[in-house]
Amino acid sequence: MSDTHKVDLITLGDELLLGIRENGHLRYLGEVFGRHGLCLRRNVTCRDTAEDIQDTFEAAWATADILITTGGLGPTSDDNTREVIAQCLGLELVFDPQVEADIQSRFEKLGRTMSENNLKQCYLPKGAERIPNPYGTAPGIYLKHQGKHLFMLPGPRSELQPMVHEQVMPRLCSQGFCNDCLAYLQIRTIGVGESALETRLQPIFDKHPGLQVAYCAHQGMVDVRLSGLCPDEIRNIGDTCREELGPDFACFGDDPLAKIIFDHLRADERTLAVAESCTGGLLANAFTDIPGASKVFNGGVVCYNNEAKMEMLGVPEDILCQHGAVSAETAVAMATGAAERFNSDYALSVTGFAGPCGGTPENPVGTIYIGYHAPCGTWCVRMKYPGERVAVKMRAVNRALDVMRRKLAKYKVEDALANMMAEAVE
Amino acid sequence: MSDTHKVDLITLGDELLLGIRENGHLRYLGEVFGRHGLCLRRNVTCRDTAEDIQDTFEAAWATADILITTGGLGPTSDDNTREVIAQCLGLELVFDPQVEADIQSRFEKLGRTMSENNLKQCYLPKGAERIPNPYGTAPGIYLKHQGKHLFMLPGPRSELQPMVHEQVMPRLCSQGFCNDCLAYLQIRTIGVGESALETRLQPIFDKHPGLQVAYCAHQGMVDVRLSGLCPDEIRNIGDTCREELGPDFACFGDDPLAKIIFDHLRADERTLAVAESCTGGLLANAFTDIPGASKVFNGGVVCYNNEAKMEMLGVPEDILCQHGAVSAETAVAMATGAAERFNSDYALSVTGFAGPCGGTPENPVGTIYIGYHAPCGTWCVRMKYPGERVAVKMRAVNRALDVMRRKLAKYKVEDALANMMAEAVE
Repeated sequence: MSDTHKVDLITLGDELLLGIRENGHLRYLGEVFGRHGLCLRRNVTCRDTAEDIQDTFEAAWATADILITTGGLGPTSDDNTREVIAQCLGLELVFDPQVEADIQSRFEKLGRTMSENNLKQCYLPKGAERIPNPYGTAPGIYLKHQGKHLFMLPGPRSELQPMVHEQVMPRLCSQGFCNDCLAYLQIRTIGVGESALETRLQPIFDKHPGLQVAYCAHQGMVDVRLSGLCPDEIRNIGDTCREELGPDFACFGDDPLAKIIFDHLRADERTLAVAESCTGGLLANAFTDIPGASKVFNGGVVCYNNEAKMEMLGVPEDILCQHGAVSAETAVAMATGAAERFNSDYALSVTGFAGPCGGTPENPVGTIYIGYHAPCGTWCVRMKYPGERVAVKMRAVNRALDVMRRKLAKYKVEDALANMMAEAVE
Repeated sequence: MSDTHKVDLITLGDELLLGIRENGHLRYLGEVFGRHGLCLRRNVTCRDTAEDIQDTFEAAWATADILITTGGLGPTSDDNTREVIAQCLGLELVFDPQVEADIQSRFEKLGRTMSENNLKQCYLPKGAERIPNPYGTAPGIYLKHQGKHLFMLPGPRSELQPMVHEQVMPRLCSQGFCNDCLAYLQIRTIGVGESALETRLQPIFDKHPGLQVAYCAHQGMVDVRLSGLCPDEIRNIGDTCREELGPDFACFGDDPLAKIIFDHLRADERTLAVAESCTGGLLANAFTDIPGASKVFNGGVVCYNNEAKMEMLGVPEDILCQHGAVSAETAVAMATGAAERFNSDYALSVTGFAGPCGGTPENPVGTIYIGYHAPCGTWCVRMKYPGERVAVKMRAVNRALDVMRRKLAKYKVEDALANMMAEAVE
């Protein structure tokens, strides 16, 4: 289904070409369309001059079935998408009194007076349909013309996204362009490189002609998106992949690793604390991004020097002197200290050299130790990741979360027994 | 200068059109080019099939002066940018033994063996120049042909960005396509909305015909980018804006707020600690993203419950009982506690309700208290920001940093005196 319709997106705006703002519309629309089995063929970002809009529009209109434009519908003089496209199509602009009433009413609600220049927003190309915009002044425009479908949408994200959801997708679905239900399944994996993952999963995929597979690697994880077949069949393929992947399977969908851990601990009514040096708060932040985090997460310490590690986490001075702040021994002592100080069942710690300075011959920049304290024991994992400081921090956090996720799954019974014994002693 | 050359960017990749990954290359290249006075005319994102690459390339090549492509240079069968473009231009692919040697040496360093399929990366269109890639296997390709300039770059960000910086920009500059020096000046402001800012600065801009101004609002800050005139003139206008803005001026350029504070404290050889509840590590993370952060930043505590606030920061139980965890009193006690526990000159704290749950009638969801402890005194600021949890955290961090930045500037002398007295007592 996805390849039968040619869907193009034109995103207008100098700020996109100057790199001032991310092209979020491509990401949003690509994701929403893909979820409904409709794949974007092309996205063109161009400047908002009349000449550039005309060139880009005419080239896309010549071959697309469905064309979306974003931006240039505002009230000021440099907003001219509506005018240029009407001219390209040889359509006159017709005044729509309902748009004027909508804009009037919006201004009244805000206690402001409608400006003269808003009047230009009340004109639509002849034969076009107004798409109401409850979130701003510029209405969207829908035009069926020459057997093609054109949607012109306003640029602000807070206006465009609900309009796509409430107005554009229902129109496309009702005309048979896309599925009502979810058209893909995403498998989130961690700990396997993209090419190794392909080698493991390809034999499964080869048994299903027509299956479409897209890979996306990010921060040590690889997401695999399956589409092109009916939902039941895709779900079965997903289950087969899950079995093949074993502990390298993280989840279906796009839950962050911290959320997977949170759900696990929440179900068991257990608590967690963290202790960090080089990741500097990013590990705590991963947990506190989750709504309701306080049900599981008690807190964390960022210790950027030895004194803080001793004072705040009770790391023994001997360990720091003998093994150094970046060592397996310190990582484990930090985790245990965090569990004790925050009165938590579990604790996760990270210590290392994020760079660009620091490092020793044995532990060069990019070396990270991850400590993990659980009711049934403590562990340490060493990793090395070459890269920039911010990338090293992110990788270290993801690796720490993955260490905990795997241990939680592996030692589920042992942890439960250790908890029972601890509670019996209390 | 910016409009005389037509510069197009073609970004290849199904994952961009599926919305799996942000089109970061557009943002990066748009920003780097813009900084050197070269403006992108158009960006086309297309699928990586031979047909789509051919259509997109031929359309762009017909009118562009400079064309950049990203992606599709890898070793696997679906990487075919090189082959398709060579065919479009009627150029045969020629084996380059230096590329093979580079790839061999890279694999040896990683202790791995080069695969057979890497050999396809050793072919370049006839007449093209290899752009070395020290960060991956795929070399970039530079081709002057038919009076136009073509750069083919690999897709991974960690390979593309240094290659642009080290190889592409110098080539463009040496051929007179762009300025060696900065072609724009960015003014970073905080605490003023975009339209209010325009009202304050427009009278200055009106005096300089030809000046181009672009605004970009993000996370409570507004960046103003000035271009279109000679560097000296722009710098003078920037200085006038700085005077007009007073404390709402953050910096020239794009330093994060934490970096501005870091530089201030580093110059004075002072130290800092943080204490957070609702921002959950994001404030500490802002400081620890700075290389060399440990020179100033001693550490931080994330306290997600009252016990942790008492145990880890010494917040008195009375304060928590009488005023609650989300209060001015608790915010100040957290800051003072952090300064004491981490033996720091300054401390910054945040406590509040990030949502979606929590909140009281007096302090609804989105209410944040920021505490600040300095040598010459303590302060508290209350803010309220409606929005999603993650957005509230980000805004609260930026506001806390801005509170500290403003107080640092205002109480510079008082802090210095307080420090002198404290050191005399010691």
